[in-house]
Order: sequence, then structure tokens, then C-alpha cells
Amino acid sequence: MRHLLSTADLSRDEAISILDVAGQMAATQRREIKKLPTLRGRTVVNLFYEDSTRTRISFEAAAKRLSADVINFSAKGSSVSKGESLKDTALTLKAMGADAVVVRHPISGAPHRLANAGWIDGTVVNAGDGTHEHPTQALLDAYTLRSRLEQDAPGADLKGRRVAIVGDVLHSRVARSNVRLLTTLGAEVVLVAPPTLLPVGIGDWPCSTSYDLDDVVGGGHGDLDAVMMLRVQRERMNAAFFPSAREYSRRYGLDARRMAKLPEHALVMHPGPMNRGLEITAEAADSPRSTIVEQVANGVAVRMAVLYLLLSGQSEGEGA
Amino acid sequence: MRHLLSTADLSRDEAISILDVAGQMAATQRREIKKLPTLRGRTVVNLFYEDSTRTRISFEAAAKRLSADVINFSAKGSSVSKGESLKDTALTLKAMGADAVVVRHPISGAPHRLANAGWIDGTVVNAGDGTHEHPTQALLDAYTLRSRLEQDAPGADLKGRRVAIVGDVLHSRVARSNVRLLTTLGAEVVLVAPPTLLPVGIGDWPCSTSYDLDDVVGGGHGDLDAVMMLRVQRERMNAAFFPSAREYSRRYGLDARRMAKLPEHALVMHPGPMNRGLEITAEAADSPRSTIVEQVANGVAVRMAVLYLLLSGQSEGEGA
Amino acid sequence: MRHLLSTADLSRDEAISILDVAGQMAATQRREIKKLPTLRGRTVVNLFYEDSTRTRISFEAAAKRLSADVINFSAKGSSVSKGESLKDTALTLKAMGADAVVVRHPISGAPHRLANAGWIDGTVVNAGDGTHEHPTQALLDAYTLRSRLEQDAPGADLKGRRVAIVGDVLHSRVARSNVRLLTTLGAEVVLVAPPTLLPVGIGDWPCSTSYDLDDVVGGGHGDLDAVMMLRVQRERMNAAFFPSAREYSRRYGLDARRMAKLPEHALVMHPGPMNRGLEITAEAADSPRSTIVEQVANGVAVRMAVLYLLLSGQSEGEGA
Repeated sequence: MRHLLSTADLSRDEAISILDVAGQMAATQRREIKKLPTLRGRTVVNLFYEDSTRTRISFEAAAKRLSADVINFSAKGSSVSKGESLKDTALTLKAMGADAVVVRHPISGAPHRLANAGWIDGTVVNAGDGTHEHPTQALLDAYTLRSRLEQDAPGADLKGRRVAIVGDVLHSRVARSNVRLLTTLGAEVVLVAPPTLLPVGIGDWPCSTSYDLDDVVGGGHGDLDAVMMLRVQRERMNAAFFPSAREYSRRYGLDARRMAKLPEHALVMHPGPMNRGLEITAEAADSPRSTIVEQVANGVAVRMAVLYLLLSGQSEGEGA
Repeated sequence: MRHLLSTADLSRDEAISILDVAGQMAATQRREIKKLPTLRGRTVVNLFYEDSTRTRISFEAAAKRLSADVINFSAKGSSVSKGESLKDTALTLKAMGADAVVVRHPISGAPHRLANAGWIDGTVVNAGDGTHEHPTQALLDAYTLRSRLEQDAPGADLKGRRVAIVGDVLHSRVARSNVRLLTTLGAEVVLVAPPTLLPVGIGDWPCSTSYDLDDVVGGGHGDLDAVMMLRVQRERMNAAFFPSAREYSRRYGLDARRMAKLPEHALVMHPGPMNRGLEITAEAADSPRSTIVEQVANGVAVRMAVLYLLLSGQSEGEGA
Repeated sequence: MRHLLSTADLSRDEAISILDVAGQMAATQRREIKKLPTLRGRTVVNLFYEDSTRTRISFEAAAKRLSADVINFSAKGSSVSKGESLKDTALTLKAMGADAVVVRHPISGAPHRLANAGWIDGTVVNAGDGTHEHPTQALLDAYTLRSRLEQDAPGADLKGRRVAIVGDVLHSRVARSNVRLLTTLGAEVVLVAPPTLLPVGIGDWPCSTSYDLDDVVGGGHGDLDAVMMLRVQRERMNAAFFPSAREYSRRYGLDARRMAKLPEHALVMHPGPMNRGLEITAEAADSPRSTIVEQVANGVAVRMAVLYLLLSGQSEGEGA
């Protein structure tokens, strides 16, 4: 594995190995001193063409706890805004000796182009591209799910588990990455969304779909192990897709009533940041079955694992 | 002491202990190599909801000289602007394992909420909230005052010293924090401001007030040991509060004429950034009795002391 | 050498010594672990009053690979925008114990003022001031040129080499710094620009000028060893200076046709970011004779050398 661009590229063994290493990283994060010397002398560049403080901070914390140097490159106010191409930016980072480039980009496929055009020597990690993929989010979701299941049954895995992903699937890179990874790991996925928020060609995805959240939480597609709520992009909440926020909440929001219909062990997940009161009520978000805060914590461990696996193989010698 | 939210929370002994540790930190800063290994492996997050480069840099320098990792989180362009609540931001930082959150917020009381609602595991340091408090500024002011007094008389303290605080007290968190800390340390404070720039309820504050700067610098409230000039917020300099900048300078600015009326040993302080020519003339700002540059230097030492005292107690084991 | 403000301040020996140290630094950058402990405990502040991500990142990477702490200070959204003077900002950085201040400023001469007014204790490195100088850019250009020449002839230097600098010389700090440094190193420079984009007083510069790029690439001023294309500032591309972008490209752009007229060994240089298709075609930019990517890589090595030479001399003792 040289880059992490899409969860579709991960074999079952590779995915499980990332989750296993993340488990070891998480153990180090429970210690008082969280820092490991593993990536000392390596440079990780956060190349963000979209604002995403949460993801940027998570990668920054992950890299620093592995003792890497981190350089933040926000494309706003940079030479990008003076018209520099992605190619020239990439060549610049390559020339500066970046060992890893973590890239967030509004255009689907930009990280693949960065990785495959030979513009970068180091490794490329996709931190979210357009409506396409957000692989570390899916990995942290799978990790969170697995570690909750392991609390009840040591050695548990995701095989045969049922996960509903609810909301604006059409625009969601989180949904895409999760469908691919969860099915690779043997889980079954049902996507729940209004017809206008499901992508064309959804019939080819390795999952089932439904327009009816009440039916799905009630077991219409089998007993669920987790419900993953997607963030509503308020700017997309307009007549073209959906009549109103209130109507959206009523039909696709997770609230106490729907929580009650779920199996007792089923988990509530959300990639954050949440619109409390829109796609999820405070009651659901703050319930003991909610993993939302754990997901954030696991995000650092998973990103440490990804950076470690991608970068430590390259290491030879020690200069300082 | 788990958090530093307000100078009102500090006992005299706690305050003096911070100043004493700051003195030791300042000594390390006079060495060529300023770095201490004390907070290695700890993560300090600068969570700034308002621009304040000076304060952010001061905390960043303090944390880095103690070998902590620093993550800057400017709330502009973050998920905050996508509508994320302070609560969810805090839960995110908690989940990421922030050991300390240094928070600047436009709303008075936000750091208290962060600390007391259980949203954060680590320590919270108030770096300025609304018109409420700015405790590290008051600590660095007290430290500066004490260290100047100690140059003349080793072992000197602030007991019985007289300090005038001049300007827009109404909107000043610096004034609030200083009144509380200085009186805790035994000093007497006189606030000097036009009536429109004094808060309602000022009669309950443990200090005297005056509308007449000439009277105060001339000894009308006793001989002064220091005059602390507050920054004028130009955006508040309008008819509602005061007729004009020129009129403000004439009545409440510190210039050579007023300097001459002060006792010879009296110090001139300003939290910066100054409006030269408005609340203070260049002559006053650059006089040998001005401590303005020392205040900045002492700011790093005081913040090192605060981070050290809050974080080092938690330390156990060493991971790297 | 206490500061690096202008290439005009560098003697031939000083300039060569920077290039030699940069060569040693570049060697460390070819190792897996690029980090050196040289500037451990030193603080480098990037004080940028203009956006320039590339230059900021290059200095940040250079400082971090020497193990310095780096603090980024973007003057946007800082107290500068609240009206703080350069003087007070400088005094703040001095008080905070900055060992080096790397400054980018829109006003020509600002770094000199910073260095010479006694506002800073540490060293000042000019990272570009107005239309005046950008000395590390010129140093990395000279380094790049020399190292390419050395590949053909070990021990080669710039003596007697001919370099054309093409484009908007009037507004170019890169051109100014290069003319001074290249002539100090014994090279001959010809400036090629339309009359409106040459500065008044150009007759006093130690170089020749031409309005005709075809003549110059064809050998009209002697065989060239390198052509350095300047970036066109699109905002200046208006009727006052030049009729149109297309007309500019036609007369002053580097394309395959003009490449073919150059001697076979002549190099193509550009400080970046490029306007592909305007001052340079993709064919020229990506040709094997192009050094554009090397220039970026060499930028880190040259800045490491500059920071090392300016800061390591001051070092005494070791605190951590």
C-alpha cells in the first residue's frame, strides 16, 4: 500500500491490518505521554483546498504524536488563488521533500491525480475529495463499530453485521467510502434516503436501499447493528432536493421514537459535525449508544495507523 | 488548580506561586537554548474564536518552549462556521486528547462553560472572554510590576501599592482581571474613565474610581506606583461613549505632561497593541519607565508557568 | 553576517559560503531522515504581511529540519489589522525571544527598518519586500545554476556565465536580487522587457538590457547559459504596461520555438508559481533543461544554510 485514496482499493486483509494497528495506536493514546518516536524526521503536509478544521486537526494530532513534522498548507490565500495548478503545487511539495501529503479537495478524484500522475514522490492520503471518498472516515467508523462489538464479544468482527446509512447519500463521500469498506469487511449496508438524494446508478452498489427510515429501524431490512446518520449540508437543503428542514427531520431524522424501535444493542454513529435537531436530536446524539465522541478519538488512532503503515516502511537510517 | 478561568478564583498564595514559577521560567528564557522538556508529549490546543495573534503566539511560544505539541484551531473557516456548537467542538478536542485548551471567545463566560460542563477532560485556560476576564494578562502585569519593584528592593511585593487603570473599563477584560488580582495581592486600584465607560455596579468593585486623570496622576488618590493604560477600541469610539478621539486623548491619554506629574518611580503599563497618539503618546510609551515590552516578554514566562502548573501535576510515565 | 536583507550586502566570499553550506544541507535532504538537531531550542517566526504559501512553507520546512520551533504570524487578522505599527509588532517578537524573524512585507525596505531600528534582537531574513529584494530566491537560483554547471564540470562556478532575466523587471524583487547576486558572482546579466516594464535608472544597474527576446535567445548578447522567466502579475497586465496577455506571450513568452534558438546546454528557470501559457509554455516548463522543480528543492537547502549561518554562531549552552 503506497497511498490511501479509496476504500475500494483495500483488500479485506489490508483493511483489517489497519484496524489492528489502530488498536495498538489507541492503546498508546490512553497513556499519559502519548508521543511515539516512529516518524521522527518525516514531514507530513496537510494540503487543504477546503476548510475542514476537524479533519485537519485530527491528522495533525496523529502526525505529531508519531513525532513527524507537520506543515499546514491551506489553499486559501496561497499561490493557488494566484492561479497555480494542482500540478505545480504538487511539484512544489515533492521538491520540498514531503513524505506524505494529506489532501482535501473539492474535486472528486483530485487525490488520485496527485498520486498517479507522478507529481508526488511521497504517499498521498485522501482526506476527502468532492462527493467521492473519505477513506479514513470509513476506517474510523469501522474501527469504532468493531471495538464496540468486541466489548461484548472479544474477537468479534463485522461479518454479517447490518448497518443503515441515512441521509444525503448523493453528496456524501462518507457514505461511498463506508459502503465499500463495510462490504469488504463482510457487513451488509442499507442506504436510507429520499429518492432525490440517492445517486444515479445506485442499483450497482453492493447494498440495498430504502426510502423509509421507520421501516428500516423497525427491522424491515433485518435487525440493525448500527445506524449511521449523515450530516445534512444545509446549503443543499432546498426545494430541488427536499421541501424543508422540518420535513427532513420528520422523515429522515433520528429521534427518541426511532431509537426505541432499534434493537437494544444498535449503535448510533455520525461523522460530525452534527446539526443537532436536524438529522439527529440531542437525545439520540448524547445517548450511551451513541459513538460520536469515540469516533473522533478513534479518528486520531486510525490516522496514526495509516500514516505509520504508509510511511514507516520507507524508513532507513536515522539522521538526528 | 485545574483550570485558569478568572483571577477571582486565585487565592493570594496561588497567585504568588504562579508569579514565583514565572520568575524561574523567565530565568530559563535568558539562556541561549530556551527549551525545557517538561511538557513533552502533551498537546495544547489554541482554540481562538476571535483573532488575537499576540496572545496566540505568546501561548504558542510558551507551550513550545516546554516541548508541548501545539495545535492552532482558529474558529474562522472551521466547522464552527458550519454551525457546530461550542459543546461539539469541545467534545471533539476532548476526544482528540487535548491536555490543555487555551480559549479566546467573544462571549463572556464561554471558557467557564467549557470547563464546567464536563465537555473537556484537560485543563482550560481563559485567553480572554468577551468583556469578562483575561487572567494571564493580569498575571503578567502583576509579574511585571513585582519584578520592577524587586529591582529596587529585593523581596518587594504588591502590598499597599497603588495602581491606576485608565480608559475604557466598561469593555475591558484586562481591567476586570487586574482589579481582582491586584487587590488579592494587596494593592489598591483606582479606575479612571469617563462615566460612560465605567460599568454599572462599579460601586461594588474593590477599588475607587475617578473621572479625572489629572487629579489621579497628581496624587489625588495617593501616590501612584503604576499607571496602566487600556487600549481604546476604535470601533467603540463614537458619540455614544465619547465625542472624538482628540477629545479622548486630551482627557484620558497619557502624555509627557501627565508623566511629569507622576512620582518618579511610577511605571507606565499597557497590554498592547497600543494606539500611539490616542491613549498614549510615543514619548510615554517609549520612556524608560514604560514596561510595555517587558510585559510581552513576561507574558511568555507567565504562560509557561500557568501551563506548567496546570499540566505537570497530571504527568506520569514517559512514552517516547 | 547578522541579517540577510539584500544580496547587495553579500561579498563574493559570503555568497559562495552560503552556496557551499547549502550544498551540504542538500546532501542531508537526500537522506531518509532529513532532520538535523542544529537549531534545537531556537524560535523562528514567519512574519508574513503578504500571502506567500510557497515561501512560508519553504522557510518552515527549512527551520523544522534544523529542529527549530516555528511560529507562523500572518499579519492578516492580527493586531496589525487593528492598527499596530511594524515597530510594535517587532518589539513584541523581540520580547517573545524570537531568534530569527523571516519577514515578507509589501513595502520596500520594511525588513531593513526592522533590522536596523533596533526593534529586533534576533536576526532578520528578508523573504521579499515590495518591489525591492528577495535574497533567498536569488541565492537558490544561483545555487541551482551552479549545481547544474557542476554536473557537467566539477568545480564550475558562475564566472563569465550569461543569464537573461525576462519579463516584468519593473516590479520584480526577484530580478533585483538576482542582478546583484549574479554580478557579484561574476556572471553577466541581460534584462529583457518591454520599455514600460523596465525601471527608471536601469542604466545604472550592472547589466545590459534589451527589448527583444528573440535577439537575446538567438545570441545577440552572447551565448546564454540560462534564461530566467519572471512571473507575470496578472493584475499589472493592463493597458498602462502592455496591451494584452496574448501580445505579452508572443513577444516575451518562452516557448519551444525560442527554446530551439538557445544553446543546447542553456537552462530554463522560473521562481514560480508559473502562469503556464503566459510567460512560459508547458513545453518549456517541463523540458529537461527546466530547473523549476529543482529550484524549489534547492530553496529548502538554501534557507537551511541561511538560517544555520545566521543562527548557529549565536549558540552557546544547551538547555534541554
